[in-house]
Amino acid sequence: MPEINSYGDDSPIAAFATTPGGSALTLIRCSGKGALNLAEKIFSDPEKLRETAGNTVLHGWIIASNEKVDEVLVSVFRAPKSYTGEDSLDISCHGGGAAGKGVMAALRAAGFRDALPGEFTFRAFMNGKLDLTQSEAVMELVSAQTDKGRSHAIGRLSGVLEQEINAIKQQLVEVLSGVEIFLDYSEDEISANADEAAGRFSGQQPVREILARLRALAQSWQRERIYQEGILAVIAGRPNAGKSSLFNLLLKEERSIVTEIPGTTRDWIEAVISLDGIPVRLADTAGLRESSDPVEKIGVERSRDLLEAAELVLYLIDGAAGITAEDRAFIGELQTARNTPLLILWNKADISPLPSPAETGGDCISISAKTGEGIAELETAIVKTIQARLNTTDERTVSTAASLGTVRQKDLVEAAAAALEEALSLAEQGQPLDLIAPRLREAVNSLGEITGEVSTADILEEMFSKFCVGK
Amino acid sequence: MPEINSYGDDSPIAAFATTPGGSALTLIRCSGKGALNLAEKIFSDPEKLRETAGNTVLHGWIIASNEKVDEVLVSVFRAPKSYTGEDSLDISCHGGGAAGKGVMAALRAAGFRDALPGEFTFRAFMNGKLDLTQSEAVMELVSAQTDKGRSHAIGRLSGVLEQEINAIKQQLVEVLSGVEIFLDYSEDEISANADEAAGRFSGQQPVREILARLRALAQSWQRERIYQEGILAVIAGRPNAGKSSLFNLLLKEERSIVTEIPGTTRDWIEAVISLDGIPVRLADTAGLRESSDPVEKIGVERSRDLLEAAELVLYLIDGAAGITAEDRAFIGELQTARNTPLLILWNKADISPLPSPAETGGDCISISAKTGEGIAELETAIVKTIQARLNTTDERTVSTAASLGTVRQKDLVEAAAAALEEALSLAEQGQPLDLIAPRLREAVNSLGEITGEVSTADILEEMFSKFCVGK
Repeated sequence: MPEINSYGDDSPIAAFATTPGGSALTLIRCSGKGALNLAEKIFSDPEKLRETAGNTVLHGWIIASNEKVDEVLVSVFRAPKSYTGEDSLDISCHGGGAAGKGVMAALRAAGFRDALPGEFTFRAFMNGKLDLTQSEAVMELVSAQTDKGRSHAIGRLSGVLEQEINAIKQQLVEVLSGVEIFLDYSEDEISANADEAAGRFSGQQPVREILARLRALAQSWQRERIYQEGILAVIAGRPNAGKSSLFNLLLKEERSIVTEIPGTTRDWIEAVISLDGIPVRLADTAGLRESSDPVEKIGVERSRDLLEAAELVLYLIDGAAGITAEDRAFIGELQTARNTPLLILWNKADISPLPSPAETGGDCISISAKTGEGIAELETAIVKTIQARLNTTDERTVSTAASLGTVRQKDLVEAAAAALEEALSLAEQGQPLDLIAPRLREAVNSLGEITGEVSTADILEEMFSKFCVGK
Repeated sequence: MPEINSYGDDSPIAAFATTPGGSALTLIRCSGKGALNLAEKIFSDPEKLRETAGNTVLHGWIIASNEKVDEVLVSVFRAPKSYTGEDSLDISCHGGGAAGKGVMAALRAAGFRDALPGEFTFRAFMNGKLDLTQSEAVMELVSAQTDKGRSHAIGRLSGVLEQEINAIKQQLVEVLSGVEIFLDYSEDEISANADEAAGRFSGQQPVREILARLRALAQSWQRERIYQEGILAVIAGRPNAGKSSLFNLLLKEERSIVTEIPGTTRDWIEAVISLDGIPVRLADTAGLRESSDPVEKIGVERSRDLLEAAELVLYLIDGAAGITAEDRAFIGELQTARNTPLLILWNKADISPLPSPAETGGDCISISAKTGEGIAELETAIVKTIQARLNTTDERTVSTAASLGTVRQKDLVEAAAAALEEALSLAEQGQPLDLIAPRLREAVNSLGEITGEVSTADILEEMFSKFCVGK
């Protein structure tokens, strides 16, 4: 068992950076104080490793108990020029499970401990290589499911959000420092304007501008969340309606299975396709059918839970059998009991054409999961449904290129906005500055927390750098 | 669609070298003539890339259509100092699917084509970086499932097999060159021994020694194949006997799931555990039950196919229900119709102890898949069964540290041995040298094919270097 350590030390750590599996290579990342010295113990040419400059790649063998474990490339990074800011190594081993496992075992024996989740990025943040929004963007990138998701995360990684937050904070700190100066010094020491000299708040206009920027940011999260998490589209219908065929056809058409939920017992199959840059988590409720078998009953219940969670239901009618009472009951339930968007699909149109709307009781999309007929129309309909959801938070209303990437950021932006609203409200009531200032400080702190700065320190810095009184 | 090209050109190729998925990093490998120049087009600092020495790591961004695709580390290798012997790059991108996909798209747009399977290693072989046994060892390493499998493949990668083959070939070429000299020149030009002067073969003794080495190598393959492929152990039993619980318990105990067979419809679950260095492919025939449902019937048939293929059956009796007529019929069938090793397990021993052998009708291992009782004994029994299979090819009879890693190698070793046996038989019949020499040449060619040398060229070289006549 690897020793469990808390974040925040600089001990040498190692971890797989790639998924083990039938790949050509496996990458192991190592970092920490003394990491290079420890690695010398298990590298075939320790002198070369000791003497090499940073940012170089060495070829050699990992050796343990006088036996060759694997032939590797070792990329050497010397502090502070590395991802973490520490001495680091990337070891490129042969793929498959066994070579990487052997090298990890050798690293542990040499004195590396297993890295905690996110520990490399945590160290990068602690060493000032990344701010918190960039650190979070690293995590977002890894879980990005579509190219749009990647592109937004890359924006944040390159500092777009950090700059926007810092710009807003800067604007706010200017307002606040005016107030603080008034509160900290007596009137005769500074030349305040009339309002402040009377203890009244004069920053309503800039605070309103700041609020607008914060609201735009907060709004960006609604869209971003859809890009990150996608929407859950559940395929439902009676047995033999062709649910699995449609599921497989949609996956095949898009050629972009990103995820398949693992697990030994699964009552439905889920995979992600990308439609118009939005991840659509497509679930096939293959297990859904009435049954007296207790195991199957659990499956049916889980499928019903899935329908509860659905953001879009694709209800499949078996065109060969026609619309049945059971279909009507199910569609009725979906339409009345829940407000979930529903697309009704008439399947097997290749052998049984779609009848009139009067007969089906509403609009149906005619498809054939067998021949692929109507699938393009179906995809268009799915995209329209998603667009309708996105339009509740129209991109055009968002005035900034920056967007939020995490709930944490959104909560802090909203906390900052709430504090500023309170400050404005207090000012409108004619409350004194010493009641308003704490609200402004709160907002600055929330913004500082977003990027991970120590907020109080930079308010002080800002204040005194402007002050220049010489005392 | 990427353009399909045949192996053997040196055009710039790119491919994922790691499994896409929820990992921290994704590695993309690029190689070929002009690979570095093409990469300049999409790297944020093209001059740095152009000027950097080989074996260096650059930090920067992949840029496509003036947009940042990903922040990357690029390891630069300049020919011939690279894996392939060509100009090469390893691009370390962020993990997850989207970043790697974006970078691959940028590489394709810049002019890289998708690499064919094994094409990097093929180029390494063509450029003399690896012989054929080492090239094959790379592939073996990737699919090695246990540490022993890795260790054997690493031996071949480091050249152990190549050296053994070359040593054997050298020995044989010495015999052959004596014969060739006699055949190519008239008696008075060379000082031949009495036998050869009389046209008789005098190399029986060295050929017998060579044969023994080849036989040892051929034998090594029988063990090696088990280390590589493992044995298939199938868990069978009536519904509710606890098959899935035992399966999960064995996986958990070993903490070493290597593979889980993917696929949307699977009628059994398979995973690999390592017992005594041997991969045991454990299959749970969860789908096995009598049914009238046509889909389930297919499942039952597949489970029966699986039992046909089994190299070990773990038959589980539901201790709570006792041994039933169905159990007895199944066990009888397994014992008589097939010669598959069978372990009979009495499950649920925690609530229902194992009765006497008289009652169960034979030896049972008492276990509880719920409490874990008896699992160590079960693992010991499995290992014993495997050992019994391995002992048919006892390691002690193998006189060499080298072992064969592929069927191709085994076929060529056997072809060489067969040719030598024929040569010996011809010599015993007193046949002339010009009938024996082709058999020896055939054996040399087979050995040369193993390492990928052009065999005829080095027979000639060997012959004339000894010759030293000056003409």
